[in-house]
Amino acid sequence: MKAAIVAVGSELLGPERLDTNSLRLTTLLDRHGVELRRKAVVGDSIEELAGELRAQVARVELILVTGGLGPTADDVTREAVAEALGRELVFHPDIVEGIERRFAAYGRRMPEVNRRQAFLVAGAEPIENSRGTAPGQILTEGSCTLFLFPGVPTELEGMILSHLEPWLAARSGGEGRETVVLKIASLPESEVEERIRPAYDEFGREAITILAKPGEIRLLATAQGAEAPRRDRLRAMRARLAALAGDAVFAQSEEETLDGVVGALLKAAGKTLTAAESCTGGLLSERITAIAGSSDYFLGGAVTYSNELKTQLVGVPEALLATHGAVSEPVARAMAEGVRSALGSDYGIGITGVAGPGGGSEEKPVGTVHIALAGPGSRPVEHRKVRFPGDRERVRWQSAQLALELLRRRLIGEGGA
Amino acid sequence: MKAAIVAVGSELLGPERLDTNSLRLTTLLDRHGVELRRKAVVGDSIEELAGELRAQVARVELILVTGGLGPTADDVTREAVAEALGRELVFHPDIVEGIERRFAAYGRRMPEVNRRQAFLVAGAEPIENSRGTAPGQILTEGSCTLFLFPGVPTELEGMILSHLEPWLAARSGGEGRETVVLKIASLPESEVEERIRPAYDEFGREAITILAKPGEIRLLATAQGAEAPRRDRLRAMRARLAALAGDAVFAQSEEETLDGVVGALLKAAGKTLTAAESCTGGLLSERITAIAGSSDYFLGGAVTYSNELKTQLVGVPEALLATHGAVSEPVARAMAEGVRSALGSDYGIGITGVAGPGGGSEEKPVGTVHIALAGPGSRPVEHRKVRFPGDRERVRWQSAQLALELLRRRLIGEGGA
Repeated sequence: MKAAIVAVGSELLGPERLDTNSLRLTTLLDRHGVELRRKAVVGDSIEELAGELRAQVARVELILVTGGLGPTADDVTREAVAEALGRELVFHPDIVEGIERRFAAYGRRMPEVNRRQAFLVAGAEPIENSRGTAPGQILTEGSCTLFLFPGVPTELEGMILSHLEPWLAARSGGEGRETVVLKIASLPESEVEERIRPAYDEFGREAITILAKPGEIRLLATAQGAEAPRRDRLRAMRARLAALAGDAVFAQSEEETLDGVVGALLKAAGKTLTAAESCTGGLLSERITAIAGSSDYFLGGAVTYSNELKTQLVGVPEALLATHGAVSEPVARAMAEGVRSALGSDYGIGITGVAGPGGGSEEKPVGTVHIALAGPGSRPVEHRKVRFPGDRERVRWQSAQLALELLRRRLIGEGGA
Repeated sequence: MKAAIVAVGSELLGPERLDTNSLRLTTLLDRHGVELRRKAVVGDSIEELAGELRAQVARVELILVTGGLGPTADDVTREAVAEALGRELVFHPDIVEGIERRFAAYGRRMPEVNRRQAFLVAGAEPIENSRGTAPGQILTEGSCTLFLFPGVPTELEGMILSHLEPWLAARSGGEGRETVVLKIASLPESEVEERIRPAYDEFGREAITILAKPGEIRLLATAQGAEAPRRDRLRAMRARLAALAGDAVFAQSEEETLDGVVGALLKAAGKTLTAAESCTGGLLSERITAIAGSSDYFLGGAVTYSNELKTQLVGVPEALLATHGAVSEPVARAMAEGVRSALGSDYGIGITGVAGPGGGSEEKPVGTVHIALAGPGSRPVEHRKVRFPGDRERVRWQSAQLALELLRRRLIGEGGA
């Protein structure tokens, strides 16, 4: 099956906004093995939209239109579809009644303009909108089915779940395409590729994609075909990739984040964390506390931007700062151990570095970062010196990422893995 | 003049990526008064792209194509344009030499596949690519001009500056459309609208747009026409809006951020800042230190997530915590004053609140936040109690935003404004 998506709205042709609804729709089309041929964005123009629909209706079997179903004069999707297909618009009193009830529930009267939303293209079935006033529409023209959806993402989502997904599932007969993801932090892309190479031979190079961003790599494995063999193949690929990548894999779903995984490990172990941050300036603490419930395991920390605060808040000896400089292994170690003991947590992280763009030297160029992790028991403080590429934001992000990854590895190690 | 944009690349039809180049292009078209009729995204398919071009070439005077100019077999823009216009592809030995020189400069030999990039559509002029190997192309068909650009944003940007912008400027004869922006933090949209209402009468409602996101509002004022009157009108609108909104306006360009403005004010005043954060968990510090050079005015801070750390790091009396609870006016005040005096800065900020989703109560529902600002001199500690709408992320963001705005107002007040 081939499909086309059309987003309607003049605001989507300006410099402020993009059509993002299509990302949600393409995920779904992908899963059901539908080939998307094109996406178009047109303004609030009957002529433009009708032209696009006329061109596509003979070429694809599915057209998804989003937007232009509102009550005002610039909402032209209804008129444009009718025009493109040479059909009438038919007024449906029962739809008006539904919209009136919706307004009444909020103690308001329906404005007269909303009557426009009760017109369906002749032959179309309405799609109930449980989250707004504009009903969607579904209609067929020859071998092509058209869905008309509102542009508001929550309203669209409701109709996707109630109508589009079941429709696609019924037609694909279980045929489709699915992807699983494995996430890896703080390993270079080349090393990940090296590790998983055997899976290329086994499953085919095109089935596996490596997507890298600073400090994080996503391994995507895709399978298509009928449901049972597809699921088997996905399971096999996931298991093989996980075995090859080893404990570098921190998550096996899009939803899991490194912050969240580390938090869950701390919580499960009943351990607490504090952090002393210099070059990351609070980023690590911010990421950890972005997770709801983080107060169970994160006590707090110190942003020790100045040398004085490194001494005052986490007890880094002045002599150490004087001898080695703030960006050094001994200072990172002292920050981790100091924040841990001063604030009384099980684990302590220290980060100090040159985030740039200024402040670099020949000996300590921009991107140089020292990260240390102090923990309970007799294990010595761990330390990593790295030089991260990229600008200030990337250096800071990768620093926090590596600190979290060090802690994650320590926690799964001590958990007995 | 009417225009169409076509982005080429099968990856832009998947769930992972959107065409964002068109935002840059629409800004430019807007400025030169060109009306964008449609945007389309097509895969790496000669048939699809040629079909789109054939449909548009008679309907618009300008077509901007991005992507598909690379060296590999799935880069089909050259072939598709030739096919759509019924022209040949012509090999240009001088272009190959240029690409060979580019590779030689990096000590490499040009791979054979790159020869494909030396083919121009018959009648096209090449556009030099100073940032990559793929030359762009410019050609005309009847009354329509086509620009073929690479999809890599930096390469595209180079060609926009060298070719597209001058071309548009020459054709628009100075006619165009321009927008100025004013940014306002931590005021409700309704209050901003109330304040600027007189400008609607003066300049027309459609000339002024209010765009709101949590904690920040952007006022956009747009003027069109010939350059001199357009600039005059923009100046007048900017001045009028700035006068109406008063010192709520913190920036008059897209580039300026609240973090940056506050940093610049601190730096200019030669003052320093520290922060004690509870519910924001380091977000305020992170935003301040994201600005290069922030070590000039930001000493550091404490993320006092637990009650113990509020006492230990910034000296909040235990009795205060016991009597009023951590989320309270007295604790916020004590945090601000405590971090200021303990860490020795001119200004100190304290933030404590319920970010949610858990932790709310009838008395202190989710979104309740206390923000305090302590400063030098005899002025008492300022305090604000707010209840922010939205989820954890929004509550945290708006809290940091309001703290920065309080400090900004204090700084401009003390600067004599």
